[in-house]
Amino acid sequence: MAMTDLKERNEHALELLFASDPVLVDVRPAIDVLPGMTKDTVLTSGPPLPWREYTGGQRAGIIGGVRYEELAPTAGDAERLLDRGDVRVAGCHDFGCVGSVAGITTASMPVLVVEDAGSGGRGFCTLFEGAGPGRLNYGVYDDGVQRNLEHLAGVIGPLLGEAVRSVEGGIRLRPIMERALRQGDELHSRNTAASGLFLRALLPALLELDGPRARTLASYLTSDDYFFLRPSMAAAKSMADRMYAADGASIVTAMAFSCKEFGIRVAGLGPRWFRGPLPEYETAGFLPGRGRAEIEAIGGESLITEVCGLGAFAQAAAFPLQAYQGEPEAMVRRNLEMYEITAGEHPSFRIPFLGYRGTPAGIDVARVATTGITPALDVGLAGKGGGQIGAGSFRAPLRPFADAWDALSTIPAP
Amino acid sequence: MAMTDLKERNEHALELLFASDPVLVDVRPAIDVLPGMTKDTVLTSGPPLPWREYTGGQRAGIIGGVRYEELAPTAGDAERLLDRGDVRVAGCHDFGCVGSVAGITTASMPVLVVEDAGSGGRGFCTLFEGAGPGRLNYGVYDDGVQRNLEHLAGVIGPLLGEAVRSVEGGIRLRPIMERALRQGDELHSRNTAASGLFLRALLPALLELDGPRARTLASYLTSDDYFFLRPSMAAAKSMADRMYAADGASIVTAMAFSCKEFGIRVAGLGPRWFRGPLPEYETAGFLPGRGRAEIEAIGGESLITEVCGLGAFAQAAAFPLQAYQGEPEAMVRRNLEMYEITAGEHPSFRIPFLGYRGTPAGIDVARVATTGITPALDVGLAGKGGGQIGAGSFRAPLRPFADAWDALSTIPAP
Repeated sequence: MAMTDLKERNEHALELLFASDPVLVDVRPAIDVLPGMTKDTVLTSGPPLPWREYTGGQRAGIIGGVRYEELAPTAGDAERLLDRGDVRVAGCHDFGCVGSVAGITTASMPVLVVEDAGSGGRGFCTLFEGAGPGRLNYGVYDDGVQRNLEHLAGVIGPLLGEAVRSVEGGIRLRPIMERALRQGDELHSRNTAASGLFLRALLPALLELDGPRARTLASYLTSDDYFFLRPSMAAAKSMADRMYAADGASIVTAMAFSCKEFGIRVAGLGPRWFRGPLPEYETAGFLPGRGRAEIEAIGGESLITEVCGLGAFAQAAAFPLQAYQGEPEAMVRRNLEMYEITAGEHPSFRIPFLGYRGTPAGIDVARVATTGITPALDVGLAGKGGGQIGAGSFRAPLRPFADAWDALSTIPAP
Repeated sequence: MAMTDLKERNEHALELLFASDPVLVDVRPAIDVLPGMTKDTVLTSGPPLPWREYTGGQRAGIIGGVRYEELAPTAGDAERLLDRGDVRVAGCHDFGCVGSVAGITTASMPVLVVEDAGSGGRGFCTLFEGAGPGRLNYGVYDDGVQRNLEHLAGVIGPLLGEAVRSVEGGIRLRPIMERALRQGDELHSRNTAASGLFLRALLPALLELDGPRARTLASYLTSDDYFFLRPSMAAAKSMADRMYAADGASIVTAMAFSCKEFGIRVAGLGPRWFRGPLPEYETAGFLPGRGRAEIEAIGGESLITEVCGLGAFAQAAAFPLQAYQGEPEAMVRRNLEMYEITAGEHPSFRIPFLGYRGTPAGIDVARVATTGITPALDVGLAGKGGGQIGAGSFRAPLRPFADAWDALSTIPAP
């Protein structure tokens, strides 16, 4: 394949990415909206593995998902169902959705429905579980987690869905994301401003609900500053997926990891995962009393934000993250380095400190393979035994990018 | 006066400033809460001048204030009342309040009542008039401005007051201000994040109002991103005023300008104004179609934010202002320069980009006089004939600081 052809194909991929207009249009149970979803399916993060290969917190999360759907009363029963294949474990990405950390997504869980206004393509993501340490997406399942998930499914999801549906045309997320980058967010590890801007956008709809229901929904939306990570992820999924239409392009369309592997997908190579070892630790900050020795990979697909020029690709917009990502100067250096491996600069995701330069966007496996520079990743850190213990900046492994570039170089041009 | 004494006195002033805890407790008509306010008083910005010396937009604003209070039906009648002294013109600062731009404050206008929880001292400021070009504080008075002011006095002020009073203990502003500095505000020329955070703090009270009234108040609070400038100013006034208790201190307690003069007050010198020429233009950005030739000084007291370590003293927290204040590097340099003339660093107003260093706080006239470095000032620019035409970074004149330092050096120590 000639390089000039590749350049054109990648430009086409970027045009699709940059033209995307993600709109939150609904909140619905996964079973109602995820193509191919069934009651006996548990979705989880990362390039899919056979059930028996999931370990630790991710395995615990999958078992928790089976129990939450009342497919089995105990963890032991759930494992037997999974062992027999009576419950299917699959990857979120294959169902149009992205998972946070372990990414457990089951039939009755409400998911954000984000639709790209231009293409009609959709991205989905479950709701933020709240700030407590006990969360299914961090591999914890107990009575408290169960009650919280039931509250999300029975109360918050329906209320939020009603409010969102009442907004004519839905809630456009791109303007919120653009503004949040001017307010200290990078929309992966920091979503503080975006969560406030979302609340503001929803306020007229909130005021149409009756008092008690409005207060319940407001209480959820203001309980923490992390609400917007999920709309950001679902938006990024809908944006990134547009790029599959760019035949032959070498631009990354997905990055994700399980407890075992990191993997990427590429526009010109369709749904095939290119796999490699887990990302490497570069710098991190920990919650009080927690430390590096406790880090356990239990999966994560919020890296879809990096795919779209956010997260670590916008670190210089989010100096408040310095406790996790290093000194401001290091954050700027890391952010600038990402321009070496991207095919373009985002036209409206812009970084104030860099003179409003567009974020580096469109990770090009050719550039990664050639330079050896791999994507920086802003990730939340899970601890052994469950729960979040901190956040940090990691680096993707080189192999999946090199393998994808090999694959793309050897297939006939479309 | 020995320098060691001065150091102690200034430390005392800073202790008072840093201990302040401004809380929005009410919104009331000025006549009800401003000490000494009368129906036939018009307050305006800057070191007070005889009525006849006010010119241009500030003079027009004062006349507009007289008409708004229905003391005179026409501009000509209002001027005659003012010429005869039947309406008193006075400085905002002498009534515990601060004025934005022309700073016109009259008896029936609602003012934010901010109380320092520690000292009980209060600061007041009128409400943001909205984003339209026709605003009394920019020297415009016509039917539209009158109707808008009536809406603020008759509807918004009472509603906001009711909501604020329903919050147990009032709304603490310092946490909002601290957070806003992490979200791209410097709380003078940029209040975007703080306005959103205020809305969030008020949300539970907003949801207690009945639907139509809640929608009216929400519509006002979300109509623009400038709402919080006024709470920020009233808070800064309550904080700065505490420092008068530091006898003999050389720390600035007020900076303000009229159409003619710039002036400062100093902790150890009480209510006396030290006056000098207007601030000088350093850099600015203009609204489309407007330019430097149109700048007209019509007054301003929002510089009270700089007195408290905000505004230009926190420019490196607000890179989104680069269209007005210059390139990010220039903003950082200017911000760092302010540490040369301040007596301390704020313990909780912190700048993410500077490694969370506290903002330079407590402008010391001794340091200004010695170094010749004068305070940078983030100001909104008024245009000839009324209306805002842009914003910029200015520099205070040296003379008032040198004169104040002379005065302080020659009086007997207390």
